Amino acid sequence: MQRTGRWGLWTLAALVALLMAPAIGSAGQGKISAQTRKCLECHQSTPGVVKQWQESAHAREGVGCFECHQAKKGESDAMDHYGFTVSVIVSPLDCGTCHPKEAEETSNSHHAQAGDILNSQDGLLGQTVGGAPAVVVGCRQCHGSIVKTNPDGTLDPTTWPNTGVGRVNPDGSKGSCSACHTRHRFSKEQARKPESCGKCHLGPDHPQKEVYEESKHGILYRAFEKDMNMGSDKWVPGVDYFDAPTCSTCHMGATPDRPVTHDVGSRLSWNLRSPVSNRTADWQKKLGGMKDVCSACHGAPFVTSFYQQLDDAVGLYNNKFAIPAKAIRDRLMQEGILSKGNFDEKLDWTYWELWHHEGRRARHGAAMSGPDYAWWHGFYDIAKNFYTGLLPEAKEACDKAGKPEVYEQIMKQYIEGQPEHAWFVKGFDPKRLDEIKKYYEERYHQKVM
Amino acid sequence: MQRTGRWGLWTLAALVALLMAPAIGSAGQGKISAQTRKCLECHQSTPGVVKQWQESAHAREGVGCFECHQAKKGESDAMDHYGFTVSVIVSPLDCGTCHPKEAEETSNSHHAQAGDILNSQDGLLGQTVGGAPAVVVGCRQCHGSIVKTNPDGTLDPTTWPNTGVGRVNPDGSKGSCSACHTRHRFSKEQARKPESCGKCHLGPDHPQKEVYEESKHGILYRAFEKDMNMGSDKWVPGVDYFDAPTCSTCHMGATPDRPVTHDVGSRLSWNLRSPVSNRTADWQKKLGGMKDVCSACHGAPFVTSFYQQLDDAVGLYNNKFAIPAKAIRDRLMQEGILSKGNFDEKLDWTYWELWHHEGRRARHGAAMSGPDYAWWHGFYDIAKNFYTGLLPEAKEACDKAGKPEVYEQIMKQYIEGQPEHAWFVKGFDPKRLDEIKKYYEERYHQKVM
Amino acid sequence: MQRTGRWGLWTLAALVALLMAPAIGSAGQGKISAQTRKCLECHQSTPGVVKQWQESAHAREGVGCFECHQAKKGESDAMDHYGFTVSVIVSPLDCGTCHPKEAEETSNSHHAQAGDILNSQDGLLGQTVGGAPAVVVGCRQCHGSIVKTNPDGTLDPTTWPNTGVGRVNPDGSKGSCSACHTRHRFSKEQARKPESCGKCHLGPDHPQKEVYEESKHGILYRAFEKDMNMGSDKWVPGVDYFDAPTCSTCHMGATPDRPVTHDVGSRLSWNLRSPVSNRTADWQKKLGGMKDVCSACHGAPFVTSFYQQLDDAVGLYNNKFAIPAKAIRDRLMQEGILSKGNFDEKLDWTYWELWHHEGRRARHGAAMSGPDYAWWHGFYDIAKNFYTGLLPEAKEACDKAGKPEVYEQIMKQYIEGQPEHAWFVKGFDPKRLDEIKKYYEERYHQKVM
Repeated sequence: MQRTGRWGLWTLAALVALLMAPAIGSAGQGKISAQTRKCLECHQSTPGVVKQWQESAHAREGVGCFECHQAKKGESDAMDHYGFTVSVIVSPLDCGTCHPKEAEETSNSHHAQAGDILNSQDGLLGQTVGGAPAVVVGCRQCHGSIVKTNPDGTLDPTTWPNTGVGRVNPDGSKGSCSACHTRHRFSKEQARKPESCGKCHLGPDHPQKEVYEESKHGILYRAFEKDMNMGSDKWVPGVDYFDAPTCSTCHMGATPDRPVTHDVGSRLSWNLRSPVSNRTADWQKKLGGMKDVCSACHGAPFVTSFYQQLDDAVGLYNNKFAIPAKAIRDRLMQEGILSKGNFDEKLDWTYWELWHHEGRRARHGAAMSGPDYAWWHGFYDIAKNFYTGLLPEAKEACDKAGKPEVYEQIMKQYIEGQPEHAWFVKGFDPKRLDEIKKYYEERYHQKVM
Repeated sequence: MQRTGRWGLWTLAALVALLMAPAIGSAGQGKISAQTRKCLECHQSTPGVVKQWQESAHAREGVGCFECHQAKKGESDAMDHYGFTVSVIVSPLDCGTCHPKEAEETSNSHHAQAGDILNSQDGLLGQTVGGAPAVVVGCRQCHGSIVKTNPDGTLDPTTWPNTGVGRVNPDGSKGSCSACHTRHRFSKEQARKPESCGKCHLGPDHPQKEVYEESKHGILYRAFEKDMNMGSDKWVPGVDYFDAPTCSTCHMGATPDRPVTHDVGSRLSWNLRSPVSNRTADWQKKLGGMKDVCSACHGAPFVTSFYQQLDDAVGLYNNKFAIPAKAIRDRLMQEGILSKGNFDEKLDWTYWELWHHEGRRARHGAAMSGPDYAWWHGFYDIAKNFYTGLLPEAKEACDKAGKPEVYEQIMKQYIEGQPEHAWFVKGFDPKRLDEIKKYYEERYHQKVM
Repeated sequence: MQRTGRWGLWTLAALVALLMAPAIGSAGQGKISAQTRKCLECHQSTPGVVKQWQESAHAREGVGCFECHQAKKGESDAMDHYGFTVSVIVSPLDCGTCHPKEAEETSNSHHAQAGDILNSQDGLLGQTVGGAPAVVVGCRQCHGSIVKTNPDGTLDPTTWPNTGVGRVNPDGSKGSCSACHTRHRFSKEQARKPESCGKCHLGPDHPQKEVYEESKHGILYRAFEKDMNMGSDKWVPGVDYFDAPTCSTCHMGATPDRPVTHDVGSRLSWNLRSPVSNRTADWQKKLGGMKDVCSACHGAPFVTSFYQQLDDAVGLYNNKFAIPAKAIRDRLMQEGILSKGNFDEKLDWTYWELWHHEGRRARHGAAMSGPDYAWWHGFYDIAKNFYTGLLPEAKEACDKAGKPEVYEQIMKQYIEGQPEHAWFVKGFDPKRLDEIKKYYEERYHQKVM
C-alpha cells in the first residue's frame, strides 16, 4: 500500500543519502569554475546567498555565480567587480542559455507582458493619483520595472531592486525568472507552492491565492503537502502526486498527455480580468488543456457541470451588472454629466472597483471554487455597489447637472423593464418576505426584519 | 522525557512500517470486492481519485468504489454505468451503513439544516439581489443545494457539483460527509485541520477561521501541528496531544469524560449569529461541555473569567448597538420613512452588515480570543457604522420624508439620555482630549489631533 | 553538499536520541523540586499544561510550576493554593531571575510601553466610542491590561485573562513574556515564527504579518521553514539558517557581529506609525543594525537601493497626503467648521483611517516588500480616501457651515498650485487617456473607459 510503502522508501532514502553525502558533495564542488570559487571566497560576507546556492541544483551541476552573472564589456549593465566583468541582473536571455524552452515560453506568455500595465488605467492611477514612489514599491514589484543603468553599470534605485515578472531588462529581454524561482536556490519545489504565485496574485483586485486557499484544492494541499513530492522532476498529477493541485499544476503542470509549459495563459478559456468577460483566442483548445488536468482526479460529468456553473456565473456578471454599469456610465459621459475617463468623481471609482475588484473576485471565486469569494467578496459586493453606489450616484450626478430626466431614462432602459432588476423598483415579493420573517423567528427566537 | 521519547518512537515506527509494508498492503488489497476491482481498472483514467482512495482507511478495510456508490434500480439518481447500477452522490444514509452514530449526530445538527438558509434574508439577497448563478457558485457551495436528478440518473448541473454541508440529497437525506472528510481519502486527520472548517467558516460574515488563526490556539497549532498526532484514533486533548486545540477539538472532540460528537452545536451556549444574541436551549449543559474541553489545559479561574469577558462583550453588543439599531430601523419602517424589509435603501444594508457581518465578527472575535477581530473588524466597525452610517442615514431619511421630528424623537429616546452614547452629543471630555494630545506629542514628536 | 549532509545528520540525531531517551528523561525529572512534584500530581486535572511544560527547556533544567509561580505572603496577588503561596501571573520580574538580560531589554522596549495606548486616541475610541468590554476582549489583549487583584489574591476578570505585551502586572512590572513565548512550553522556536508576532501585528491598522507573508521573505519561509533550524540556540542568519528571515531575525536576531536583543525597536530608523513619519532618535545607528541583518544575504547596492525606495515612499506619503490632510482638517477646526478632535463627523474618521490605517499599510508595505499592501491596501486607499473622502467632506462641511470660501482657500493653498494634485483639478492628460483607451482595446478586445 502507498502509505506504508512510502515510509519505507523515505527511511531507505535517508540511509542511502547518509552514506553518499560526502561523495555527492565533492562531485558537485569538483565542477565549480575557478571564477566562481573566487566569488564564493569574497561572498562569505553575504553567507546566506552562498548557502542558498549550495542547496540548489545549479550548485550540484557546477553552475555558479560567474556562469550566470558574467557579462561582456560594453553591455549597458556590465560593471567591473574586483576584476570580473559582471552584471547584477540575470535575465531570461541568460537563463535561456541552459533553459531555452522555459525562457521562450515565458517570453511568449502573459507574464512577460505584465509591464505593459504601465500603459493602462492602473498605471495612470499609480503614477498620477498615487505617485511615482508608490509605483516603485507597489505596482512594479509585481508587474516589473524598466530597469535603467547608470553609466558605471550599476542600477538606478528607482528601477531596482525589482523582480517583477514583466521586468524590462537592460538587455531588452522581458521577465524575471527569479520572480517565481527565487534567488538563489531557484527551486522547482518552491515555485510550485501557491505562496510563490501569491506574491502577486492576491489582494482586492485578483485574489487568486485567497480563493485557492479556501477551495477544496487549497484545503487538501495544506493537509497533504508533505505527501505531494513537491520537488520531483516531472510532477505529473495522478502519477507523482494525487492529493491536490497547486496553481502550477493547473496552469503550467505536465499531465500524462501534455508537457509542462511556462506559458501561463495557455489553458485559460475565459478572460476574467476585463470589464466584460470574453472568450480568449482559441479558447476551446485552451479549455481542453485545462480539462486534461481536471481529469487526473475528476470524471467527465463533474468537469462538464463545473464549467456549466462557471459559465453561468460569468454570464450573470456580464449581463446583469457589467454591461449595464458600463452603459450607464457611458451615457453620463455622453451627456456631459461626468467628465470622460477621469477619476475625479465618486462614480468613476465605483465603476472601476465594480469590474476591476469586485467583478474579478466574483469570477475568480467561481472559476476556482472559492464560495466566499464568489459570493461575499464578489457578487454580494457587486450588487451592493451597483444598487447603493452606482445608481444613487448616477441619480445625484444627474440632479446636480440639472438633468434628472437622464436618470429617469437610464432607469427605464436598464432597470425597470428588466426582470432581474425588478425588485429594486417594486420591492421584494411580500409573500416571500413574510416567509423569511417566520423562518428567522423560528431560528433566532426574535424578530429580525 | 516526551520529546526524546517521541523521536525514538517515530524511528521505530518507520522501521516497523518498512518491514510490514508489503504484508499490510496485500491484506487490504485482499479484501477488495470484485466489483470495485472492476471500477479501479477503468478508473485508471482518473488516477488521482484511485490513489487518494488507496491511502484511505476505507481501502485498508476493503471498502471500495462499489461498496459506497452502488445503487438500486429505481432510486432517482441510480444510473447504469458500464453494467453497474450506481449513483454519483454518496449520501449520509449510505455512509451511515457503517457509521450510524456519526450519520445520526450530523443529521440532528445545525450542519444538516444549513440548506434552510435558502429561506432566509441571505437567500433572498442571493437569489434576488445577486442572481441564481451566484447562489450556485456561492451560498450553496457551503450551505448545500437541493440536488436534482435528470431522468437518466445524472445530476442537474445547477445543483451539482456540490458538497455543501446541508445538501439535500436525492434520497431525501440532508448533509454531505465529504464536506469535511474530503473525497477520496475521507481522512480524520484532514477533517480535524482548521482549514477544513475554514472552507465555509470564514469571510466578512463569520470569520471563525481568521479569528482562530490569530488566537493563541491557532498560533500554537501552526507551531506544533507536527507534534499533535492529528491522525490518532481517539485524539483526546491532554492525552493524545496537548499543544493546541483545533476547531474540531472544542466543538466536536472527545475528552477523557466525553465522547466525540458530530453534533457541532452541542457545546454552544450563546447564539452569536442572530441580530441580538440570546442563549441557546439548554445552554448551561452545553457550556459545561465546552468547559470540559477548556479544562484539559486551563484551570477553573481562567475559564470562568474568560467567559465573564465574553458575556460582557455580548452584553455590550446587544445593549449598546444591536437593540437600539433595530429599534431605530423599526421606527422608521413604522413611520413609513423606510419601506419594510427591502434592500432598496442604504440604511437597510447598513443595518444588515451591522448585525450580520460586523456584529458577528465582534462576537466571534471575543468568543475565540482574536483581539483584532473583536475590536478592529468588530466593535470598531460596529461603532463607526452606528454613528457615521445608521444615525446620519436615519436623519437623512427623516429629512427627505419631511419628518425631521421623528429623528429628533429617536435621538432623544435612544441616544441623548444614554450615558454610553453621551459623547456623540456632547463631544469627548475636553480634559481627556488634552491628555491625549500631550501623550501623542511625546510619543510621535508632533501634533496629531 | 549541504542538503545531503543534513539528511545524514538528522538520521544520526534520531538514532542517538533513541538510545539516550530514557536517560535524558530521568535526568530532567531528577531535578524537579518536591513542591513542583506536588503541583504536578494535582494538575493531572489539567493534563495539557503539564505535558506542555514537560516538553519545555524549563522541565529539562528542573524549573517547574513552583519555581515560577511561588509568591510571598503580602504580595498583592499572592494567594493560598492548597497550602502553597502562589500567584497566577508570572511577571517579567519573575522571569528575570534567570533571564535578566532579556527581562531588562524587554522592559526598556516599545513592547513594555504598549499599555500606554490607553491614553491615546485609540484608547478613547475603544473606551468611549466602543465600550469597556470591547477594550477588554480587543485592545488590551494585545496592548495589555492593568491587572487588578481581589483581596484574596485572585484576579479581576475584567483585567485577566490577559497576556498583552504591555501588561501592567500586580508587582508593578510591565510586560508579559508569555505574550510571545506561549505558556507552558515557552519555546524559542515558537516565538521565532511569524505567527507569534502576528497575534497583534496584523489587521487594518498595522498588517505586518500580512505584509511579511506576501513578501519574498515570507514566501521562502513557508517553503523552507523545515530547513531553518528554528529551535537552534544562537540562530544566526547565514550561519544556522539561510533561506529567509522571520520577524524575529530582523528585529531581534543575532548576527555574526551583533547579539540577540529583546529591545524590538532598536533597529527601526523610521517611525512608520505616526500621522507624519519622522526619524527615530539615533536613527543612523539603528539603521546600521538593520542593514547588518540584511547583509547576511544581500549585497550593499541592493540594501542601499532598497532603502532609497522606502525613503521615497515615506516622503510621498508625508508630503503629498499626510501633511496636507492634517493641515486641511486643522483649518476646518480653526474655523469652527469641525469640532475639535472629536469623532462626531465623518471627516474625523476619514482622516483617522488615512493615517492610522491606510497610511501605515502603505508604509509597512514599502518597508517589508509587500507590493499589494504598499499599493492596493496602502497608497491606493490613501489616494481614494483623500480625493473622494476628505476633500468632498471638507467641501460639504464648509457649505453646511455657510463658509464655502474656506474650501476655496483650501483648494488654492493645498491642491490647485501643487503639480502632484494637478490632475484632480484639470483632469488627466487627454493624450495619455487616449493611449490607455487604445491599450485596453488591444488587451481586452472591448472599450473599457
